[in-house]
Amino acid sequence: MSKWPIPHGMQAALDAARAAEAAGEVPIGAAVMQGDALIASAGNATRTPPDPTGHAEIRALRSAAEKLGQDRLADCDLYVTLEPCAMCAGAISHARIARLYYGASDPKGGAVEHGARIFEHPQCLHKPEVYSGMGESEAAEMLRAFFRGRR
Amino acid sequence: MSKWPIPHGMQAALDAARAAEAAGEVPIGAAVMQGDALIASAGNATRTPPDPTGHAEIRALRSAAEKLGQDRLADCDLYVTLEPCAMCAGAISHARIARLYYGASDPKGGAVEHGARIFEHPQCLHKPEVYSGMGESEAAEMLRAFFRGRR
Repeated sequence: MSKWPIPHGMQAALDAARAAEAAGEVPIGAAVMQGDALIASAGNATRTPPDPTGHAEIRALRSAAEKLGQDRLADCDLYVTLEPCAMCAGAISHARIARLYYGASDPKGGAVEHGARIFEHPQCLHKPEVYSGMGESEAAEMLRAFFRGRR
Repeated sequence: MSKWPIPHGMQAALDAARAAEAAGEVPIGAAVMQGDALIASAGNATRTPPDPTGHAEIRALRSAAEKLGQDRLADCDLYVTLEPCAMCAGAISHARIARLYYGASDPKGGAVEHGARIFEHPQCLHKPEVYSGMGESEAAEMLRAFFRGRR
């Protein structure tokens, strides 16, 4: 059960995670919002076609940039169901995303509040506002069930 | 002048950097080699089409994965003209690249020997062998000339 209503952006990210799972991919989803408007959403897709960079965040950012016709998304927010890894945190910074909202923490692979802590170095040219825990229980349960099913 | 002959992979990366510059992009290039075979090369392309993730490394890795039909490139090496940023270092790790060769160091944006030092955290699941300095003078001079021209 969520502690508060989950906003549109995180709902779209959770929906994209479910769609990824249905397609045989890891259930992680992301959505780019510009104010109240959903610009793009995407789930993980590293297997079909094979793409080691096919994380939900990368795919949502690329799609949003293409739709808006600009490589900087400074007036956009990114919602993602899991703490971004180093690759995705770097991409979020390059895209100049204003606010990053993520669901579950990822001590094993996350690079926002864990490990490389991408936004905490002087080499990081843009640091978004970061909010975590939104939609956490849904996001984490989806991943737990997925990896349980694979064992 | 180079101190030693520049191998095929780095020559391909330097060629891709020159092509990127000719296309109005930042002159950085990358190439994926499988043994002696060039699998893919790419230059930076963040402007046309707009893509905040369009760094040379990301584009070369995606292209190689698609051509080889696998998202893990464990028997491949990556050559890049500049020290990878956090996003690209993360992607190199996800792709399981065996050896990373890069030309110029990048104290401002690099994340291999600077800043986030992506490969040095327990959250990094795969660390390539890393070699730097190959083709450095050519790579660095191309970037210096590019940014001089923009001032």
